Amino acid sequence: MPFVATPQSMRFASALPLQSGRSLGDYALSYETYGTLNAAKSNAVLICHALNASHHVAGCYAGQEKSEGWWDNMIGPGKPVDTNKFFVIGVNNLGSCFGSTGPMHTDPATGRVYGADFPVMTVEDWVNAQARLLDALGIETLAAVMGGSLGGMQALSWTLQHPTRVRYAVVVASAPNLTAENIAFNEVARRAIVTDPDFHAGHFYQHGVVPKRGLRIARMIGHITYLSDDVMNEKFGRQLRDAIAPLVPSGGPPARDAPSAPYRFSTQEVEFQIESYLRYQGDKFAEYFDANTYLLITRALDYFDPARAFGGNLSLALARAQAKFLLVSFTTDWRFSPKRSREIVKALLDNRRDISYAEIDAPHGHDAFLLDDPRYMGIVRSYFDSIWQDAHSHAVPTKAAAGGAL
Amino acid sequence: MPFVATPQSMRFASALPLQSGRSLGDYALSYETYGTLNAAKSNAVLICHALNASHHVAGCYAGQEKSEGWWDNMIGPGKPVDTNKFFVIGVNNLGSCFGSTGPMHTDPATGRVYGADFPVMTVEDWVNAQARLLDALGIETLAAVMGGSLGGMQALSWTLQHPTRVRYAVVVASAPNLTAENIAFNEVARRAIVTDPDFHAGHFYQHGVVPKRGLRIARMIGHITYLSDDVMNEKFGRQLRDAIAPLVPSGGPPARDAPSAPYRFSTQEVEFQIESYLRYQGDKFAEYFDANTYLLITRALDYFDPARAFGGNLSLALARAQAKFLLVSFTTDWRFSPKRSREIVKALLDNRRDISYAEIDAPHGHDAFLLDDPRYMGIVRSYFDSIWQDAHSHAVPTKAAAGGAL
Repeated sequence: MPFVATPQSMRFASALPLQSGRSLGDYALSYETYGTLNAAKSNAVLICHALNASHHVAGCYAGQEKSEGWWDNMIGPGKPVDTNKFFVIGVNNLGSCFGSTGPMHTDPATGRVYGADFPVMTVEDWVNAQARLLDALGIETLAAVMGGSLGGMQALSWTLQHPTRVRYAVVVASAPNLTAENIAFNEVARRAIVTDPDFHAGHFYQHGVVPKRGLRIARMIGHITYLSDDVMNEKFGRQLRDAIAPLVPSGGPPARDAPSAPYRFSTQEVEFQIESYLRYQGDKFAEYFDANTYLLITRALDYFDPARAFGGNLSLALARAQAKFLLVSFTTDWRFSPKRSREIVKALLDNRRDISYAEIDAPHGHDAFLLDDPRYMGIVRSYFDSIWQDAHSHAVPTKAAAGGAL
Repeated sequence: MPFVATPQSMRFASALPLQSGRSLGDYALSYETYGTLNAAKSNAVLICHALNASHHVAGCYAGQEKSEGWWDNMIGPGKPVDTNKFFVIGVNNLGSCFGSTGPMHTDPATGRVYGADFPVMTVEDWVNAQARLLDALGIETLAAVMGGSLGGMQALSWTLQHPTRVRYAVVVASAPNLTAENIAFNEVARRAIVTDPDFHAGHFYQHGVVPKRGLRIARMIGHITYLSDDVMNEKFGRQLRDAIAPLVPSGGPPARDAPSAPYRFSTQEVEFQIESYLRYQGDKFAEYFDANTYLLITRALDYFDPARAFGGNLSLALARAQAKFLLVSFTTDWRFSPKRSREIVKALLDNRRDISYAEIDAPHGHDAFLLDDPRYMGIVRSYFDSIWQDAHSHAVPTKAAAGGAL
């Protein structure tokens, strides 16, 4: 039985200065907390989210079945990030469409919906907004900051922007910046959205439409890059679409055409399982995700590049970090490959930081960071055990406790 | 000085039966030939094309500078496929938009433009159409059939559909079928085209519009998969867009922003070089390529699967082949990886076929098959030398001559 999560919101009256030179005035952050903040306020863990997620990290909402948070397998009572020990905070990033101030809200300065005029946000801006939330909650220092993918970039950036406020950083399936190919996929997705006639230059809200065609394409592209070639072949291969008739008996799996069933010889109808899967994912996404949010979040990914101000030298860029690190990557992740995590590991080692690194042999591609791989879960669990012991005993040094992850 | 190529066309009055059960009546094939057919008609080489190519394989059109054929670096007098020795035939596939009968032509049965009603074509259908052209040219047996990517699939299929008519097959950067990921990319591209409001269910011609938005997205996706991650990083990396001013002095390279130039902080403007490159490729493609052709050709790719009729057993499927084979793959090609070529090699070896295989360590990804890699060019050259010697001397056995390619 999952525990009950309660979303909260905090309003910030003073404007947040942004990296772009603009600022965001009078904004709200949606967040959730799980577990109890101890008297010393030393057991707080901040969870940063990636593209399609929110402050709802763990637990379920009261009366809503199947409303588990997006990292509910990782976080909760007795789970790898144990909310019986840690006070865990999930916060929705600015520009999102899940509660915090975003493009679908009204700009207090103009009285009009932001739409495409919502300021471009960066990872650094999000981290600063998160830091203000911690200020408001009276938390000076995080026991840990943790995130996967774009969330991992935020965790890394925390150690650079607020080095004295983070004791441990857990950076999963992430990268020190995007490659040209990463940016390319983001750009195609953005062009699909922006050139959808229903986008109306980002002000579609007042036209009563949603650029669903573009959102569907964006999601389909994204989905391909989240999965490994291997897992796609295993899951779908060249299987043909579900048979249309007969109707599926309740509870049973959908009937499948045999691999030797005749082709339909159609360019527009679904022929292969993978097509049906992608269309379904695209349709679902277009129902709830905001087009302007998609543009903003992919752009934050593109822009993240802490080495940029150091002439591309990541070791120099990470010299500011004081936290201890756990980095995790997955062998079949071709979006943020292990090579990219190793760049961070190397730069941290160049700075003689305390770093544990695990490269998990998982078949699932980038999506693996959200899935239940026992080795992955075990490594995070033992690392958080060591964080806990580090705070409560001087007898067990951290490195030994986290040694299994190396 | 490239030689002059002259496009030709041949009309076929009798209907072509298609794999789908439909047929195509009264069609024309555009083709070109280079070199001279010998008296024995034993020196013919057929070149099969991939997605974005045509019968114009080599040479230039009279009075048109920069009109080189798409494989002009490979084929011509003194080139690896030497037209001083071989009679080379390029043929445009049915359903294309470059001359042969396609969706933009009038269906003689209805008097209306085919549009989306053009029958779905398969690799096997194309091969049969090519065979009819050879019949008309009086060529019973090909010295060789050759193609890259989708063209390689046609070359392979030739050896299965007309095993006695092919002496050698050269299959470059190809695969025995598409993976789920390959199909997925095709499907996203097709959805982008089909859901473009200007597509009009495939009958956009009579509306006087072209679904350019969809074509642009399709081309951008395609382009990403043609290049390797490495070559994209080398060519573009995280370089920012070209500076807008000052104007480029004639002949000089465009001015570039330094890597440390400020970001624009925009979600819709071009920020990175790779974005500008992809948009340019998309725009250019949308100007000349036909949307229905794109659907047809990607579907032919999806459908190709000679092992399908043999329960997925490629070795059984290739048992019919009698030709000798050269297979070539490129290490950084992640669209049709070396692993896929090796599947073909293994299946041919299972059948004790005469097979040479070269895996070229090239950085360019799938596009490498069109580029001038000296090792690649050298291997094709020596293979065609051996084909020539095989026809003209019994002293030099083929295997020895092609040994360098192994």
